[in-house]
Amino acid sequence: MNETETKKLLQQVARGELAPDDALLSLKMQPFDDIDIAKLDTHRGLRQGVGEIIYGAGKTPQQIDRIGHALWEDGQRTILVTRMSREAEEYFNKDIPFTYYPEARAAVIGAMMPADTEAQILVVTGGTSDIPVAEEAAVTAETLGNPVKRIYDVGVAGIHRLLSHTEEIMTANVIIAIAGMEGALASVVGGLADCPVIAVPTSVGYGTAFGGVTALLSMLNSCASGVSVVNIDNGFGAGYLASMINHMGGKQ
Amino acid sequence: MNETETKKLLQQVARGELAPDDALLSLKMQPFDDIDIAKLDTHRGLRQGVGEIIYGAGKTPQQIDRIGHALWEDGQRTILVTRMSREAEEYFNKDIPFTYYPEARAAVIGAMMPADTEAQILVVTGGTSDIPVAEEAAVTAETLGNPVKRIYDVGVAGIHRLLSHTEEIMTANVIIAIAGMEGALASVVGGLADCPVIAVPTSVGYGTAFGGVTALLSMLNSCASGVSVVNIDNGFGAGYLASMINHMGGKQ
Amino acid sequence: MNETETKKLLQQVARGELAPDDALLSLKMQPFDDIDIAKLDTHRGLRQGVGEIIYGAGKTPQQIDRIGHALWEDGQRTILVTRMSREAEEYFNKDIPFTYYPEARAAVIGAMMPADTEAQILVVTGGTSDIPVAEEAAVTAETLGNPVKRIYDVGVAGIHRLLSHTEEIMTANVIIAIAGMEGALASVVGGLADCPVIAVPTSVGYGTAFGGVTALLSMLNSCASGVSVVNIDNGFGAGYLASMINHMGGKQ
Amino acid sequence: MNETETKKLLQQVARGELAPDDALLSLKMQPFDDIDIAKLDTHRGLRQGVGEIIYGAGKTPQQIDRIGHALWEDGQRTILVTRMSREAEEYFNKDIPFTYYPEARAAVIGAMMPADTEAQILVVTGGTSDIPVAEEAAVTAETLGNPVKRIYDVGVAGIHRLLSHTEEIMTANVIIAIAGMEGALASVVGGLADCPVIAVPTSVGYGTAFGGVTALLSMLNSCASGVSVVNIDNGFGAGYLASMINHMGGKQ
Amino acid sequence: MNETETKKLLQQVARGELAPDDALLSLKMQPFDDIDIAKLDTHRGLRQGVGEIIYGAGKTPQQIDRIGHALWEDGQRTILVTRMSREAEEYFNKDIPFTYYPEARAAVIGAMMPADTEAQILVVTGGTSDIPVAEEAAVTAETLGNPVKRIYDVGVAGIHRLLSHTEEIMTANVIIAIAGMEGALASVVGGLADCPVIAVPTSVGYGTAFGGVTALLSMLNSCASGVSVVNIDNGFGAGYLASMINHMGGKQ
Amino acid sequence: MNETETKKLLQQVARGELAPDDALLSLKMQPFDDIDIAKLDTHRGLRQGVGEIIYGAGKTPQQIDRIGHALWEDGQRTILVTRMSREAEEYFNKDIPFTYYPEARAAVIGAMMPADTEAQILVVTGGTSDIPVAEEAAVTAETLGNPVKRIYDVGVAGIHRLLSHTEEIMTANVIIAIAGMEGALASVVGGLADCPVIAVPTSVGYGTAFGGVTALLSMLNSCASGVSVVNIDNGFGAGYLASMINHMGGKQ
Amino acid sequence: MNETETKKLLQQVARGELAPDDALLSLKMQPFDDIDIAKLDTHRGLRQGVGEIIYGAGKTPQQIDRIGHALWEDGQRTILVTRMSREAEEYFNKDIPFTYYPEARAAVIGAMMPADTEAQILVVTGGTSDIPVAEEAAVTAETLGNPVKRIYDVGVAGIHRLLSHTEEIMTANVIIAIAGMEGALASVVGGLADCPVIAVPTSVGYGTAFGGVTALLSMLNSCASGVSVVNIDNGFGAGYLASMINHMGGKQ
Amino acid sequence: MNETETKKLLQQVARGELAPDDALLSLKMQPFDDIDIAKLDTHRGLRQGVGEIIYGAGKTPQQIDRIGHALWEDGQRTILVTRMSREAEEYFNKDIPFTYYPEARAAVIGAMMPADTEAQILVVTGGTSDIPVAEEAAVTAETLGNPVKRIYDVGVAGIHRLLSHTEEIMTANVIIAIAGMEGALASVVGGLADCPVIAVPTSVGYGTAFGGVTALLSMLNSCASGVSVVNIDNGFGAGYLASMINHMGGKQ
Repeated sequence: MNETETKKLLQQVARGELAPDDALLSLKMQPFDDIDIAKLDTHRGLRQGVGEIIYGAGKTPQQIDRIGHALWEDGQRTILVTRMSREAEEYFNKDIPFTYYPEARAAVIGAMMPADTEAQILVVTGGTSDIPVAEEAAVTAETLGNPVKRIYDVGVAGIHRLLSHTEEIMTANVIIAIAGMEGALASVVGGLADCPVIAVPTSVGYGTAFGGVTALLSMLNSCASGVSVVNIDNGFGAGYLASMINHMGGKQ
Repeated sequence: MNETETKKLLQQVARGELAPDDALLSLKMQPFDDIDIAKLDTHRGLRQGVGEIIYGAGKTPQQIDRIGHALWEDGQRTILVTRMSREAEEYFNKDIPFTYYPEARAAVIGAMMPADTEAQILVVTGGTSDIPVAEEAAVTAETLGNPVKRIYDVGVAGIHRLLSHTEEIMTANVIIAIAGMEGALASVVGGLADCPVIAVPTSVGYGTAFGGVTALLSMLNSCASGVSVVNIDNGFGAGYLASMINHMGGKQ
Repeated sequence: MNETETKKLLQQVARGELAPDDALLSLKMQPFDDIDIAKLDTHRGLRQGVGEIIYGAGKTPQQIDRIGHALWEDGQRTILVTRMSREAEEYFNKDIPFTYYPEARAAVIGAMMPADTEAQILVVTGGTSDIPVAEEAAVTAETLGNPVKRIYDVGVAGIHRLLSHTEEIMTANVIIAIAGMEGALASVVGGLADCPVIAVPTSVGYGTAFGGVTALLSMLNSCASGVSVVNIDNGFGAGYLASMINHMGGKQ
Repeated sequence: MNETETKKLLQQVARGELAPDDALLSLKMQPFDDIDIAKLDTHRGLRQGVGEIIYGAGKTPQQIDRIGHALWEDGQRTILVTRMSREAEEYFNKDIPFTYYPEARAAVIGAMMPADTEAQILVVTGGTSDIPVAEEAAVTAETLGNPVKRIYDVGVAGIHRLLSHTEEIMTANVIIAIAGMEGALASVVGGLADCPVIAVPTSVGYGTAFGGVTALLSMLNSCASGVSVVNIDNGFGAGYLASMINHMGGKQ
Repeated sequence: MNETETKKLLQQVARGELAPDDALLSLKMQPFDDIDIAKLDTHRGLRQGVGEIIYGAGKTPQQIDRIGHALWEDGQRTILVTRMSREAEEYFNKDIPFTYYPEARAAVIGAMMPADTEAQILVVTGGTSDIPVAEEAAVTAETLGNPVKRIYDVGVAGIHRLLSHTEEIMTANVIIAIAGMEGALASVVGGLADCPVIAVPTSVGYGTAFGGVTALLSMLNSCASGVSVVNIDNGFGAGYLASMINHMGGKQ
Repeated sequence: MNETETKKLLQQVARGELAPDDALLSLKMQPFDDIDIAKLDTHRGLRQGVGEIIYGAGKTPQQIDRIGHALWEDGQRTILVTRMSREAEEYFNKDIPFTYYPEARAAVIGAMMPADTEAQILVVTGGTSDIPVAEEAAVTAETLGNPVKRIYDVGVAGIHRLLSHTEEIMTANVIIAIAGMEGALASVVGGLADCPVIAVPTSVGYGTAFGGVTALLSMLNSCASGVSVVNIDNGFGAGYLASMINHMGGKQ
Repeated sequence: MNETETKKLLQQVARGELAPDDALLSLKMQPFDDIDIAKLDTHRGLRQGVGEIIYGAGKTPQQIDRIGHALWEDGQRTILVTRMSREAEEYFNKDIPFTYYPEARAAVIGAMMPADTEAQILVVTGGTSDIPVAEEAAVTAETLGNPVKRIYDVGVAGIHRLLSHTEEIMTANVIIAIAGMEGALASVVGGLADCPVIAVPTSVGYGTAFGGVTALLSMLNSCASGVSVVNIDNGFGAGYLASMINHMGGKQ
Repeated sequence: MNETETKKLLQQVARGELAPDDALLSLKMQPFDDIDIAKLDTHRGLRQGVGEIIYGAGKTPQQIDRIGHALWEDGQRTILVTRMSREAEEYFNKDIPFTYYPEARAAVIGAMMPADTEAQILVVTGGTSDIPVAEEAAVTAETLGNPVKRIYDVGVAGIHRLLSHTEEIMTANVIIAIAGMEGALASVVGGLADCPVIAVPTSVGYGTAFGGVTALLSMLNSCASGVSVVNIDNGFGAGYLASMINHMGGKQ
């Protein structure tokens, strides 16, 4: 459904020819435009309450530039680009608002959504090498309108570092726990917290860390309740889900 | 030892009623009772806002009976027992309120918490063989005070079955998607929903289903956003986390 | 040596023109020419009804050039080269008809076979990153004389995209379903279609995608009937098999 | 859609209120009945041109009996039951036509479809231990109306056994190649044949046979073209797909 | 070397025909007797400073009885039997001193060595299901003359339980940390302790616990220093090594 | 059909006694008899210089009895049955010469071939639990006419035990090294020996022994030259190959 | 915050100089300084009796330089830097004492601790390719004040090389056994020694060496007692643990 | 044992002070020199009847040059260097006889041993990409004095190619079967041959070829007798073992 069709549909509603409920369903079910690179899902913002997201991995700088501008022209004002290389950043035509977050390897076209809740998302990492994944999660959550608090390098081997943040962990609304190596952070945080914990294994480590598989398995077997897991290094997925949960209050 | 007790302790020190050295020893939190089978964490209700849970796997009928009664005597009025065999159920001394849910292989000592929210948790399965895991999730969520809606046997190979429930999926508050074999249900549900989806791989299948590993991997790689995963067959974990998310509204 | 030649040989024995011992030696089928790089199977066209194929991976530009020309001189007029790098393409001496398909990383020496059937092969992909594999499959099928229809970037996470092609899926003769990550596309397509579905896992994804293994396992466990699987990224194999099936009608 | 609804729909078509094409689409998209055990897909026969199939694994004798009779009452006259144990067979109420095939661990309620093609499906096994899987494939194909030829115990270690059947392999319409251990049968058969080969790895073997994984990997890496693979021990899937391909001629 | 030969050797030393150093070397290099079941290494007590050990797994009750009595007759007075089933325990002829430890599935023929050090070995477990492995470790260490302190069921998900034992952990001489599931206990204990930590993964857990592999990988990747790992469920190995380390003081 | 028969056939063609077409059909080697259980390869004795072998695993006592008697009637006088259970042994009709070797789980119908060489095969094991596999290897080699020397329970952890047999290892003609757990025996034996070493991993061990996989990997990575490996627990394969090598002298 | 400081704090409360609420906040142990790169644990020296360690992998030359100087300014006089590249070494500002050990890829800022024990640590390797890992272990142990003896390239395939060092192995206090490929060194050394053996698998090898996994599995399954294992290539971890054990005597 | 010691030992024999047998044992047990790079095993020629071998992988050009010259000076006249890069070849000081075999990535310092047997080793490969491994095997065998016959690119998918060499396979003394992908070559060759077959899996293939693991597993599960396996790409090991077997005749 393109812009013309969407307008027509809304006019039908305006004229009383279409019930709003039916229009909503139509908009949800057939919301995509067709440009040659990929079928853009330009109503995702409507359907899932968030802006559009471009997954930059495997896309050329040219493709990212083109899709980004197409979405902007479609009217999107908050477009997150993840896994965006320095090369893509340099290539991008900055004739539209654009901010790059190097540690997160992400960019925002337009502007972050304004924070519409006071509930904080806590992002915790085991080590300093986990920070790029953490920043991807944090920038994603911030882009989607969430206040984010970062606590980095508090791995369980020096448990006192982590425990000095017990207060923040116990009062958090949602926690993203990010760790490589043995991934024990998720279990300890999950035991202290009484909110959902999204565990993100990272590919940090060597030998039997197996590129994040050990941390993943460890997190899946967490003896703490309230912990769920996303793919290795999937900071975006964690940030997106955390935002979804953090906005749950508005439903009631 | 809760915050009040800790403050009391520090005030005793301030009043000179307690030597600093003795306070140092006491300041190590010890909020648990000690019975011989396992150190019961009888303040969990306070700390995490839920009743007590007994993980029945690997425990003898005698142990479950003993821990269950100890918790009841401690004042717990909602005690969930998971992975409880028929043998354990038969052995259990029913001199206290006790209900057994055979499909879920679970029991509730005392009573389920009354539903304190109208927001529903949706439990969806790919096949009929996934039902025991689904019931474990559903009974867990109900015990913790959530309305639960079940939609079973709507695997993606007959996508029209699943799509006939599009309305329920699009309006759900939290979804638990349970599937074995190739686990594709999580991706399709995740694509339709705009709420958190907790994916539970099950050990249903044969050959390269590898006891649930294929479904797990599939779910971790879901191309839909908002999906996170728990351990294979971990219905309890999914139900617990879903309840946590479903109660988020109360925080704001 | 084909059946005619063999019969001729036995008739020579019958006529006393050939000693039984010499015939014994000749009776070992040797239908191949010997050039120094590889024993070319120049009768494959006869035996399997298709042209000759050069698997370019692991061959130097020089080797591909040499084998390609040798086959052309042998009389082959449809020679498909797969996994052909840009370097090999540039090196190739274009004194014989030669067309390069960059997205498919493939070339045709001579010309594609004319389409000898109206039955279409449908090539479907989950994402845009799967396109190189899809093009290898499509170009293979077209080279072997099949009409091919492409539907790209219709992953199950936005199921409406895929469902908007329900008609084409339901009326296809053979479908090649190509996807990385969780590979759920095969199951959904398999459930909608009533024709053979050849599933091709791709190495698209990261972390627990394990270079295509997760998609492979998912496809092998498809709960839909009529689905079979080829090796990761094996677009050629899928295109070849699809062509074989698409030409089955001629046998009856 | 239940019987009443289906009748209503057909009456609309009869009265000219609904175009036949639209009715067909409706029937394809919403074809299931609801009984308490599982949502029966009672129009599969219409949609995919075959009878109904009950996957017996994980179902109790009572469930199989009930579903079988429900399908019969719904008008199905060819119902295949796979993975049906001796216990289920004994329990089944034989007040309706019922035939059990012990080697295939399968049964047919009603009758096999009459063979509607002369094209044969060839079922080949490497050893005698692969026969149960082979029989599941053969009985499935026969039930769906295909002539089937069986060649068992012709593993490649005694290559002359297999080669003595070169004629049958070279003239087959579709081949199902079934082997455990190293699974080399698929490659050799695939090299000899010029028709689609469906390879079925079996769990036959010990040690590094890894329950069929080695045969599976071997088959996926077959250097022969035209070979695709289904799950370990999935005789049904192979027979179903073979039947689909074997009936392709009717489309042109 | 049997008793007669050993005596002869010692007489040579006594007569000054053999230097003590040479005799010691001879004794170390050729210390075994031959009985028909297995070549008993009857000087292990001499060589490694400990009694003899019988690994009971895979041995019949008859074999254990026979080896046990043979060692006793050879003069051994502290013989540990590990992995000894109830059946073997019942069969054993108790005409020689014998004590069975059911939780540890172990027995001592003769008597435990008297504790010859005050330094304690601390045995810590994550859950109650880890206790059999812990008891195997503890009984092994006690048999070899070490004081042992047990702290069970202090998994990291309820970190306060573990922290209430900080004092004992910080002052321990050697720690054996035993856990299944995600095995995070080793990292937290390793971070708190300043003594060697021997980590023992157990096969406790389900699904992706993979029979102890997840705990093993987690422990190998511990971010704490001073942690090393033994095989899954290898309580004996941990107890033996802990005893070795706990007796190190005597060397200086 | 052997070479003589083939020549005879061609001579018949030369004499006009046989039509070329008929000869063409016959020329496909068919050196096997057909009984209903399995196609017996009754010329294997001629082709590979050994008697016939029945692989008993997966065959019923009835099948073994039937095949054994069929081979005997065919004239075979040395028939080895491997993986033969006690049940099969008891069922076997002993109206023909039959000897059962319980530790090897093997039997010989007829008689072992007389030793036709003085060169010995050395069978070495790491532990006592490896003996069943070792006996299968030893009995196989003896059946095929080889003198065999056994050295059991000489694992590398007590290296002096193994070194006390250095002389035998250094002078052996072929060695079969059998070990489970870490499989280090193959490397040490391979380093001492200057003859071919056939390594057999066994499924002895627990936890990370992974049913023989660890021993297998260890043996494949042996830093000693002259070592090759067979499947886990494949005593028969090792004995057969050792016999082949041990008879090599006769060729020169 | 150390024990003295904590006691001081409680005494301040006792004297009324500090409000209980403020004490409550401070009582969360915070013994670390905060610089922007990582939270330095500057009391580790006190708590674990060793200097500070910088894990160089994943840190930029700038970060290492900065952390190194910060620790020196904090008063640390023995700072070990592991996994330090040539680039980092060249960048490091040598205005403070600095020694680089190229084979170990490690450096010491300040000076090694003087050897405070005569007990030696023995470092043994299977091959020359294992030397970098061995040197990391040796330099770590030397930095922490231990005499170290190196015996390199004594793999078990030439067992006489290793046995020529039997005396040193039998009299060692702690042994670090380092090997890639099949890792059998640990078992043989473990069988000869009567002291703790720390086994370090290395990533040396190819094919089924799987980057050290085979050596790791082999070492975990060592049939010798007293052997424990650390992560692949973890020379630092082995050296650190060996030092800990080698200093045990001082405790008694 | 260095040259001086060896001379002294031989003088003792000459003077009758040492029995020749004892001297032989001494020479076998302590045969190594010490140069700084690696402990050279300079008597390997004596002990195992072959020249010295330098494994070039992981060694610098300088190290190979140095070890090669040291061995030459020690009197070795046939020194094989495997895994030798072009760089190492260019660096090597050719002041001593030196021949480089580029396809085999190997060199011979001095000269190949003259062929001392007429028995041939047959080297067979499945594809052209397997040739480097095959040449490493062939050059190794030739260096050790064996006639070698090569048959390359005869994979089983075109079985007639392989069968045209049936004569050579059936009359071979030892066969080295080399293949990647599905590795079926070993089974078919093993079934045709009546001599030992050494199977070498190669890392040729993609996707689920898993770098040679699939071929390895396939070969370990070969249903043919007389087949054993070496590590992936281990051409040297196969050539060395084949030579050992090919020289067996001399022992009798």
